[in-house]
Amino acid sequence: MENSNNNLFIEISKAADFFKSKDNFVILTHMNPDGDTLGSGFGLAMLLDRMGKKSTVICSDEIPQKYEYFTSLAPQNADFNKKTTVVAVDVADVKLLGRLEEKYAGSVELCIDHHFSNIGYAEATYLDSNAAANCECIYDLAKALGVEIDKDIALALYTGISTDTGCFRFSNTTAKTHRIGANLMEYGIDTAEINRIMFETKSRIRVELEKMALDAMEFHFDGKCAVITVTREMYEKTGCKDEDLEGITSISRSIEGVIVGVTLREREEGGFKISVRTYPPVDASAICKRVGGGGHIRAAGCQLGPEYNAKQAVAEMLMHVKAVMEEDFAGTVTDK
Amino acid sequence: MENSNNNLFIEISKAADFFKSKDNFVILTHMNPDGDTLGSGFGLAMLLDRMGKKSTVICSDEIPQKYEYFTSLAPQNADFNKKTTVVAVDVADVKLLGRLEEKYAGSVELCIDHHFSNIGYAEATYLDSNAAANCECIYDLAKALGVEIDKDIALALYTGISTDTGCFRFSNTTAKTHRIGANLMEYGIDTAEINRIMFETKSRIRVELEKMALDAMEFHFDGKCAVITVTREMYEKTGCKDEDLEGITSISRSIEGVIVGVTLREREEGGFKISVRTYPPVDASAICKRVGGGGHIRAAGCQLGPEYNAKQAVAEMLMHVKAVMEEDFAGTVTDK
Repeated sequence: MENSNNNLFIEISKAADFFKSKDNFVILTHMNPDGDTLGSGFGLAMLLDRMGKKSTVICSDEIPQKYEYFTSLAPQNADFNKKTTVVAVDVADVKLLGRLEEKYAGSVELCIDHHFSNIGYAEATYLDSNAAANCECIYDLAKALGVEIDKDIALALYTGISTDTGCFRFSNTTAKTHRIGANLMEYGIDTAEINRIMFETKSRIRVELEKMALDAMEFHFDGKCAVITVTREMYEKTGCKDEDLEGITSISRSIEGVIVGVTLREREEGGFKISVRTYPPVDASAICKRVGGGGHIRAAGCQLGPEYNAKQAVAEMLMHVKAVMEEDFAGTVTDK
Repeated sequence: MENSNNNLFIEISKAADFFKSKDNFVILTHMNPDGDTLGSGFGLAMLLDRMGKKSTVICSDEIPQKYEYFTSLAPQNADFNKKTTVVAVDVADVKLLGRLEEKYAGSVELCIDHHFSNIGYAEATYLDSNAAANCECIYDLAKALGVEIDKDIALALYTGISTDTGCFRFSNTTAKTHRIGANLMEYGIDTAEINRIMFETKSRIRVELEKMALDAMEFHFDGKCAVITVTREMYEKTGCKDEDLEGITSISRSIEGVIVGVTLREREEGGFKISVRTYPPVDASAICKRVGGGGHIRAAGCQLGPEYNAKQAVAEMLMHVKAVMEEDFAGTVTDK
């Protein structure tokens, strides 16, 4: 199968043949690295090491502290004085190489990925879009290579699978994901400890943010709607950036009885960026469309201009939430 | 194998024979029912239904709202005008039958359980203490009975397994747990939706409590120690009871960099109930022993009497935390 860029999508056996035929690899991971790209990178590096080959894993950005133990698992020994073979793992687009894009975008010989959206930038790509995590692809590659998995490799691959599936919780999880998880556990890894590190540890700034979000939350329409407003003052007080707020939007909807969660974030230039999250039967995109926004049925967004202060922006959104709820419930909705 | 009460521990095939030989069952679940006892009970009820037998699942306490959908899955049709066969699932001790203890304690013919601590109160017991969830035992029973699992049965069993393992996160999870999870997924259940209901929904009182706990948190010793004090005033303000606070003790330790989490709860009669949670190398029980308490190396508890006010109680605990940290780190620990 060839994509529009005439790049080749190949079978796993061909990917295995490729790795067998080379000896000195650079393994690219995606920017803002997560457990799956790093588990894939260091997992692959260990497979290559067991085959007597050399490799080094590189990334545009610093490796987050909780993944740092990966780096001690695989010898980082590519010989940069000789020709290196450049491969990429879990990287759907050259843009995701970050600072490495300029140097490597045109020279990726093989990409191993699980993103349906992969643009086919590499000379050849092994893509399994049914894989919940790219580490499932690396697991399949190990089998195709005939390399024995060991405890360290299992640790890296399990970490990638667990982090990309929210520990087998998200809808991308398949029966195969569980079967690979089972097989990896049998190498004696301490999955409870891995998951503790991956899921139970929160940063101080995240805790401050959650506190702030919970403090700012108000309930409407008999507890069915929760509204969080994050003002500029709050940004300044906690020293948080907009990126830090990812995930905050899901807090309101997670409260028992809430079916519409609205999060308003005051923009630096004034006005508000608004996220709406809903549960059936309420249509989030219908709410946002009423103020010129849009999105999906359960997750949508819109904006309100600097002519609104916080109180007015909340009142405006509540009016639209009420209207859509009345439509979706086919009845009158009252506040308090 | 017989236990000290001369009750019989039997193989799964014998348990299957037992169910085949009877027709009219009462299935007992444990008090304060959770996903595993209810998944086991309603899962078993469905298996019996598919075999043309009648049964009713009963419980001392009300079924929590999030498990209510179980009740519609299995016909509750035991004939109480005829002799019923009483079985128990996930019930380690007759005391755990709650209000049903008096009526049923002496008449349980078969118990299916996964608790190592099972006291052997039933006439016969099938016990698999390696099973992370009792629903694994019910899965094995289905295989032994030769009854085809269907989507509804899979839903009940998956729910029990997921809730008892924190969605495959806790240390009780085994490779077998994952393999059963994989098999159950293949019946087409929406595991992401089940897990959303089980794990992502928080009660309003729980949210209030978390907010309160985070508001009350203070950090010491370069962020290595987090202290939460829950005063009587906070209890009154949120209307929460002592039971509601379970789980709050783990919040402090979950923050990045924290290795000692101390939670002080003011008692109604004055004084404080104190929980200490640690990560290596700090010994929680050593901290608590210094004030007459005790426990495990990572989780311990102690009390301070009504002669302490909140500030004094915190100061007292910090002194002991400092002493034990200095021992465990073999160096001086300073606050701020």
